[in-house]
Amino acid sequence: MSQKSKPSLSDIRRAHERIQPFIHRTPILTNSAIDEIAGCKIFFKCENFQKVGAFKARGAANAVLKLRPEEKEKGVATHSSGNHAAALARAASVAGIKAYIVMPSNAPEIKKKAVRSYGGDIIECDPTLKARESTLEEVVKKTGARFIPPFEDWDVIEGQATCALEMWEEGIAFDTLMAPVGGGGLLGGTALVTHYLSPNTAVIAAEPSGADDAYQSFKAGKRVPMEGPQTIADGLLTSMGGINFDLMMEHVDDVLTVDDGEIIEAMRLIYERMKIIIEPSCAVPLAALLKNKDRFMGQKVGIILSGGNVDLGKLPF
Amino acid sequence: MSQKSKPSLSDIRRAHERIQPFIHRTPILTNSAIDEIAGCKIFFKCENFQKVGAFKARGAANAVLKLRPEEKEKGVATHSSGNHAAALARAASVAGIKAYIVMPSNAPEIKKKAVRSYGGDIIECDPTLKARESTLEEVVKKTGARFIPPFEDWDVIEGQATCALEMWEEGIAFDTLMAPVGGGGLLGGTALVTHYLSPNTAVIAAEPSGADDAYQSFKAGKRVPMEGPQTIADGLLTSMGGINFDLMMEHVDDVLTVDDGEIIEAMRLIYERMKIIIEPSCAVPLAALLKNKDRFMGQKVGIILSGGNVDLGKLPF
Repeated sequence: MSQKSKPSLSDIRRAHERIQPFIHRTPILTNSAIDEIAGCKIFFKCENFQKVGAFKARGAANAVLKLRPEEKEKGVATHSSGNHAAALARAASVAGIKAYIVMPSNAPEIKKKAVRSYGGDIIECDPTLKARESTLEEVVKKTGARFIPPFEDWDVIEGQATCALEMWEEGIAFDTLMAPVGGGGLLGGTALVTHYLSPNTAVIAAEPSGADDAYQSFKAGKRVPMEGPQTIADGLLTSMGGINFDLMMEHVDDVLTVDDGEIIEAMRLIYERMKIIIEPSCAVPLAALLKNKDRFMGQKVGIILSGGNVDLGKLPF
Repeated sequence: MSQKSKPSLSDIRRAHERIQPFIHRTPILTNSAIDEIAGCKIFFKCENFQKVGAFKARGAANAVLKLRPEEKEKGVATHSSGNHAAALARAASVAGIKAYIVMPSNAPEIKKKAVRSYGGDIIECDPTLKARESTLEEVVKKTGARFIPPFEDWDVIEGQATCALEMWEEGIAFDTLMAPVGGGGLLGGTALVTHYLSPNTAVIAAEPSGADDAYQSFKAGKRVPMEGPQTIADGLLTSMGGINFDLMMEHVDDVLTVDDGEIIEAMRLIYERMKIIIEPSCAVPLAALLKNKDRFMGQKVGIILSGGNVDLGKLPF
């Protein structure tokens, strides 16, 4: 049954068992050249290799699999132009139920194609948040489908928490765990599971300075809305949700910001040294670490590489 | 001591033990989306994650570690503008000996940088094969360094064979193993170890049609020299060596060719679906498989992804 409040460690472990048949247990990679540059030992959790190319597969699968039979009959719905759209379409397809995905008319064709390839039903709307919300409302009213939000939802957060859970299961004594922060679902889940399993490990969020509402909110101790975010890290444009803000205030130790130049440099380092493809959003934690080397000197640091869906024709180098 | 003739299975196993502390045991990745497209089950051996970004680290390490103490004192030398240059410089650095690398004056700066970063001593020459060979001869005469060829050498072949050895150690019953062919060291080593361990497994070489001397030689039953090779797969421009030709005639089942368009399409598939970075050369076996799907239908196919050193600013898509 759907989670109404903060999941316990057992809840998260059960979520992991629930979604395990439908997701990859992604590898943790290390790279001695990057360690040398960084002055610490970094463990990269490769969610870019995850199903649908992003950690979002976890939360969407968990939310769909927890639906009651009568909810399943009516399907699920969301609005998204990013990885959550594909993740929810795939989770629905795996569960054999309908997925209604509201997408702005100007969403990249490649994103629509991904949703369609999983059998998702795309409903186009004007490219404004208002149009997205009102169109979604209509769809939900008409179909009775259950709205699965991209991050502001306990089932989704519980699912995203399984990523850090897998990291802890490797038996590495991380001094610090780092995750990028957009809506906050991955960060919230990571902070929560780390609080349960290793309360002395620092959890640090990394955010582009061009979309720094989590940073501003963290410093102010209350949610600061973001206006006109601008960054190459297109997965992190979203403002943070309320329950993830609360998780951050309770369980996150700091928020570090980096500019686009620093993000691109870290992204290039990962491409050239690790030979793997990541989205710009994934490079944000490594960029933040390299900008604050002294702080991590000699540590064991876990970094979540959140996804690998990038337009190869538009790489910033 | 250096290998004077075809290595036995025990020789290859000993080579693996010898180089193991200095190389990665690279992962084997699978991808269900590509399997669906291909109609078979493909196991990708990721030598793009190898030290120096290519399988060449194996052969160079093996050749260097087998030198006698008095040979080590004088160092090693080669001419190369590619992965073998960096691989030999690194192997020498690990062994604490000198490496003299003859490189054409027009070699890409990034390749020179790699050699320098491992402490290799670069000797520039005119960009012709003749100048490379005569410059190397001078260097060897002057320094007494031992020439380590990129592929036409039993120690190097023995080292490259450890890649397929690791694949067989995974306990997968491959119906077919595929490797790209340039000079033939990787192909020769792969064919030899497979002959020892699973003689019924087909070993298939894949080659760009714009540099198809192995194909022509295989069909003719004698070495056919190549003139003016042209292909995007820049790691496969070399003509095949004599001992590797003999290994091919004895232990390789077929040679398949593909054009640059097919190579780019397969390369893109690996980037987009697997989220990993490979050189164009690595995409040649997958391109050949996709061009001849019927032949591999339902099989277990092992494909060696040979390296990941590519200029990210010049991707063909």
